[in-house]
Amino acid sequence: MRIVSNIRRMWRIADEARAAGKRIGLVPTMGYFHEGHLSLMRTARKECDLLVVSIFVNPTQFGPDEDLAAYPRDVERDCRDAEAVGADIVFIPTADEIYPAGYQTDVTVNKVTRNLCGVDRPVHFRGVATVVTKLFNIVKPHMAIFGEKDFQQLATIKRLAKDLSFDVEIVGGPTIRETDGLAMSSRNAYIRPEERETALCLSRSLAIAKEMVDTGERRSERILQAVRSHIESKEQAEIDYIKICSTETIEDIEEIDGEGLLAIAVKIGKARLIDNCVLRPEN
Amino acid sequence: MRIVSNIRRMWRIADEARAAGKRIGLVPTMGYFHEGHLSLMRTARKECDLLVVSIFVNPTQFGPDEDLAAYPRDVERDCRDAEAVGADIVFIPTADEIYPAGYQTDVTVNKVTRNLCGVDRPVHFRGVATVVTKLFNIVKPHMAIFGEKDFQQLATIKRLAKDLSFDVEIVGGPTIRETDGLAMSSRNAYIRPEERETALCLSRSLAIAKEMVDTGERRSERILQAVRSHIESKEQAEIDYIKICSTETIEDIEEIDGEGLLAIAVKIGKARLIDNCVLRPEN
Repeated sequence: MRIVSNIRRMWRIADEARAAGKRIGLVPTMGYFHEGHLSLMRTARKECDLLVVSIFVNPTQFGPDEDLAAYPRDVERDCRDAEAVGADIVFIPTADEIYPAGYQTDVTVNKVTRNLCGVDRPVHFRGVATVVTKLFNIVKPHMAIFGEKDFQQLATIKRLAKDLSFDVEIVGGPTIRETDGLAMSSRNAYIRPEERETALCLSRSLAIAKEMVDTGERRSERILQAVRSHIESKEQAEIDYIKICSTETIEDIEEIDGEGLLAIAVKIGKARLIDNCVLRPEN
Repeated sequence: MRIVSNIRRMWRIADEARAAGKRIGLVPTMGYFHEGHLSLMRTARKECDLLVVSIFVNPTQFGPDEDLAAYPRDVERDCRDAEAVGADIVFIPTADEIYPAGYQTDVTVNKVTRNLCGVDRPVHFRGVATVVTKLFNIVKPHMAIFGEKDFQQLATIKRLAKDLSFDVEIVGGPTIRETDGLAMSSRNAYIRPEERETALCLSRSLAIAKEMVDTGERRSERILQAVRSHIESKEQAEIDYIKICSTETIEDIEEIDGEGLLAIAVKIGKARLIDNCVLRPEN
């Protein structure tokens, strides 16, 4: 496994791989790997000849009051983990390599980014769209994989790739959970032991919603009421949003017709946790 | 020569060319070719194995009061001309192919686009940056060439390519002039015969500025005064802007130290004409 930090070197490696007919897969990450990341890498590994994992804690996707400085990092452990799952290259650029002096360009996906996390984090998805555009240009992948845990991010990248005519297949990988149901996230590091039980209200409320849909409920408001009252029953939990929306446009929907995304963001102590599931009445 | 209008087909042609070790050159245009376009094609032809000329009158780079509907078009003649200079492919997408239903993504180069034409045409360069990003992703060129006549556009694309980490060499091609000095432009079609003499005030004022610099003048304001008074002596000419600025950042400069861009925009009847030259005291 090679560690690459330079854009030009990554270009040349990508060119050589493509000239040799190899399929390049990219797993873009901010590091501090958990099973969710490793699961994405394993999926990409099966589908590609050259597996590139990028690690970049992208400053432009953090708001001014967010946790950029505190964001957990462990590059050494990450490299060991990436090698263990068969990554060929870990691309770890510095912030100066990605945003050199005079940098002044933004990529904005305008609509898919407005709802859910876009309400409270207005600059977040612009930062994500911009850095992913750069990573696509640097790594030149045939496919890139993103976790469904960040469903709105995945929808944003799908829209970005289509809109900017990127010849990159965008794949979603399923959310990986702890045995108690908590969705894996680097930000789970912020959950204190005494908050752990409360943190389970997210995954449990997804189960409540699924059961309602399985027994015939289609009205978003009824489902949201049940989810809301479950989470509000937990003293330490502060709801940021609970929504049911289109899986493609991320706009609120009033009834689940075909499928709907149930997306939840809850603050518990220092941690802001998100979780989601796709509700499909037909299944 | 092949005519291609489909993004997927263009991707596959680009992939095949790259797999065969060919260098792809792109000349992005809005069609209605004159010698300026053909000169860019000839330069690219010499440097590349696969020469792709794109023709797309991009609606998003026209303001609401601008000349999108009236913009001159002659695709048949353009294809003959492109073939005559040795183009391999003319890429002519429809607006629906470039901006499909649900399209919602913008690329913004924030600073280089503010001065000069960016003052009166605030959405113009966002449209240019976005469509060029798409064309780079569609044609996958090794190099792309843009006319120095649209100097701010060239500076914007250079910044865009660097900022978004495009592995594309951006080349500028010199302004081509009529024998009387008028810079070639598709919009010269708007100049009426009785305005032609007036239209020469742009290129003549560049000559005045060059001579001042050759005889030692370095102060922008002195040069701009002379240019302004030459243009104001023409009754039909209405100055939009006259500026001396950095060739890289396109910010105004007070003194020419190294080099400076003299950029001019003048309205003459229905035509809005631009011209520029780089002033280099050392030469």
